[in-house]
Amino acid sequence: MKLYSYWRSSTAYRARIALNLKGLEYEIVPVHLLRDGGEHRKADYMALNPQGILPTLEDGGVALTQSLAIMEYLDETHPTPPLLPADAVGRARVRAFCQAIACEIHPLTNLRVLKHLVSVVGQGEEEKLAWYRHWTGEGLKGLEAMAAGSGAFVHGDSPTMADICLVPQMYNARRFNIDLTPYPTLVRIDETCRALDAFAAAAPEAQPDAGT
Amino acid sequence: MKLYSYWRSSTAYRARIALNLKGLEYEIVPVHLLRDGGEHRKADYMALNPQGILPTLEDGGVALTQSLAIMEYLDETHPTPPLLPADAVGRARVRAFCQAIACEIHPLTNLRVLKHLVSVVGQGEEEKLAWYRHWTGEGLKGLEAMAAGSGAFVHGDSPTMADICLVPQMYNARRFNIDLTPYPTLVRIDETCRALDAFAAAAPEAQPDAGT
Repeated sequence: MKLYSYWRSSTAYRARIALNLKGLEYEIVPVHLLRDGGEHRKADYMALNPQGILPTLEDGGVALTQSLAIMEYLDETHPTPPLLPADAVGRARVRAFCQAIACEIHPLTNLRVLKHLVSVVGQGEEEKLAWYRHWTGEGLKGLEAMAAGSGAFVHGDSPTMADICLVPQMYNARRFNIDLTPYPTLVRIDETCRALDAFAAAAPEAQPDAGT
Repeated sequence: MKLYSYWRSSTAYRARIALNLKGLEYEIVPVHLLRDGGEHRKADYMALNPQGILPTLEDGGVALTQSLAIMEYLDETHPTPPLLPADAVGRARVRAFCQAIACEIHPLTNLRVLKHLVSVVGQGEEEKLAWYRHWTGEGLKGLEAMAAGSGAFVHGDSPTMADICLVPQMYNARRFNIDLTPYPTLVRIDETCRALDAFAAAAPEAQPDAGT
């Protein structure tokens, strides 16, 4: 398998953790989001991923897009260890937690939106950061409430897709100096996860294109 | 089952279509997004849905949130008719299509973000509409490419979660007068779907709280 990835892309980070938890071999193909107007907007990449975003996973000649869909695909094609609970209500809870990140926080705070806020809307650096902090704070508040009563991980005794989405989101929050003290459950689960090899090896700083 | 819904909420619209396609009985509990500062931000609703957003589905005393997670739950607990294809690659394609709407278009163009753009960022009405058109256009362009080669529906011969996400997105685009001529495949599939009873009965104008 080939994963088109950028070290700081949090959606590629999700896919990397999932691949590592499954113990799968994969080749990283770096796609630089900033260089040369963005390698993800070039025709050859968009032929694989018509939205022109990361990540894309190539498996047996098929190009798969959208990180949550990729995780579901990996879980279906390589069921062990499972990334979702065994019961329908548990699976709904884990998926809702993922979507609270992937549909509510990340879309408002990713690179293309921050660039648009500056170059089209005309926001300054401080206003851009205020936007970032507002939507991240709103989102983390909801997640902390959703995680109430969680054990070592968001759901059950082993990592699920919920933890896979949480860790990159917390990485981004730290990078933008968001005060995390109101979210003790999230902080604790994030630390537990990052101590695991599968998460550590997926971290931005551990990537072949780190720092580029 | 009880669905907490607002007639114009496109995420509630998705859940309504899914419930109708499954032929399930459910009670609509209207939650007004504009009245009295937003009924979705009141403590009693947020006890069910800590994010304070629509929809919530109550089933057997359990509150389920996030429309895509709700659709997956309904598909697992009531498998007929299926809302996902039978093969893993097909399911990945359908889920990616859903997420291209739910993670890329809708989060940037929903009511709370448009309100924030005006009241916090200080954008005027025309600039707000430009923002709306920009992100909807970017998103529909990607979707049209993803739908290339589709038959009557986005995937296969019957509606899937992809069609369920598409129809409310197209409703929103029409409501904001987006030019849809660049997206002939999406327009065709949307029309095919809306002719079906399950989609028609879920439309905003067919809801008990329509026009409120």
